[in-house]
Amino acid sequence: MVKYLNQTESINLDKDLFEKYKFSVDQLMELAGQSCAIAIARTYPSLKNSTQKILICCGPGNNGGDGLVCARHLKQFGYLPEIYYPKKTNNTLYENLLHQCIENDIPLLEDNVEYIASKQLHQFGLIIDAIFGFSFKPPVRDTFIPIICLLQNTTIPICSIDIPSGWNVEEGPPTEGGIKPEMLISLTAPKLCAKKFKGKYHYLGGRFVPKKLNEAYNLNLPEYPDTDLILLLK
Amino acid sequence: MVKYLNQTESINLDKDLFEKYKFSVDQLMELAGQSCAIAIARTYPSLKNSTQKILICCGPGNNGGDGLVCARHLKQFGYLPEIYYPKKTNNTLYENLLHQCIENDIPLLEDNVEYIASKQLHQFGLIIDAIFGFSFKPPVRDTFIPIICLLQNTTIPICSIDIPSGWNVEEGPPTEGGIKPEMLISLTAPKLCAKKFKGKYHYLGGRFVPKKLNEAYNLNLPEYPDTDLILLLK
Repeated sequence: MVKYLNQTESINLDKDLFEKYKFSVDQLMELAGQSCAIAIARTYPSLKNSTQKILICCGPGNNGGDGLVCARHLKQFGYLPEIYYPKKTNNTLYENLLHQCIENDIPLLEDNVEYIASKQLHQFGLIIDAIFGFSFKPPVRDTFIPIICLLQNTTIPICSIDIPSGWNVEEGPPTEGGIKPEMLISLTAPKLCAKKFKGKYHYLGGRFVPKKLNEAYNLNLPEYPDTDLILLLK
Repeated sequence: MVKYLNQTESINLDKDLFEKYKFSVDQLMELAGQSCAIAIARTYPSLKNSTQKILICCGPGNNGGDGLVCARHLKQFGYLPEIYYPKKTNNTLYENLLHQCIENDIPLLEDNVEYIASKQLHQFGLIIDAIFGFSFKPPVRDTFIPIICLLQNTTIPICSIDIPSGWNVEEGPPTEGGIKPEMLISLTAPKLCAKKFKGKYHYLGGRFVPKKLNEAYNLNLPEYPDTDLILLLK
């Protein structure tokens, strides 16, 4: 069975991809975000060419970057993503990823969460949670409390990228509350908290792990079929 | 009908992607090379899990970079690529792309073309031509004459990335000789020389062109189906 990684293993695996295997963040974020878009399009085909939009909530780190890339590919696939990105990361990669989204005519929601909740939320058929990833350590910082609360209370289906935001990477949801995504896309390999995932669809994405790295971490990754870039785990 | 670009349009379109849309070379090369690997895997499925290998001939520029990325994705898809890369490009991006290939257990052929032709060529079921791209201006430099001659004279099927190497980007094959690929993968949009392509399979890859850019150049790109990253033009 595929290995579920603890937080230290996740961080070390990521480090190896960049340092030993010399991938760039641009490369792997592109592949990760693309695989998320493919999994989402496969799972929610009725949102294509629909008036129902997709809200992509992006955090300040790599998980948010995956979200920005995912938004752009969803747009290419004929969906209507919009981005909520309350704490923009101040470096060239992230600025460029956001610029690419804007130049692909993806709206950026600049309003606060209360306004989004009351005036805009009904337009969305799906919410992508790209807020926190495998390096998250509680507590949730103030800036993100309103959006996490929104995700906890909405009935719109949620798709979490890599980790349901606010969950403990190893333990899963907090004892009270916590978001309940309908879909989870584990990137590279699932993290321990994915064992607590009770939603309908669990995908694996990020088909770029070298065989040697798979073996070094005993990941026991399942074989992706043909040229597929995603794999349904559940 | 989809527009076939002249050399100046190709160069300007590429420039716009990097300067106006602020994509990084890492990002677009990853997507371009990945789309090539998908098209090749779809066209030559019998080479998967076969003893027949795929020879990837890489030039010194971006076309060669696409080839290195393609090699890595082919390896992920279960094929056996080997790389011939006679003039290695001396910058971090290319050094890292090559490193990623080597760390994915893709052999690098260091022998000269005569040795490859006499001792190794029979092992290959397909040759990928990633030598020159849309910025090529004749004549072929000395370093690449032997490999272009090999490609002209072999009976092994050839798949050219973006441009059949040695062809004039607008006019097509030279008056005498010239390589005759069985497959051509046009990246972003086809170039004028693709009108002279007489092979069996012509694919379009590189599904990342923003709508605005498509319109600005009147590319009239066909719609890719679903989440497909390639499209069969012929």
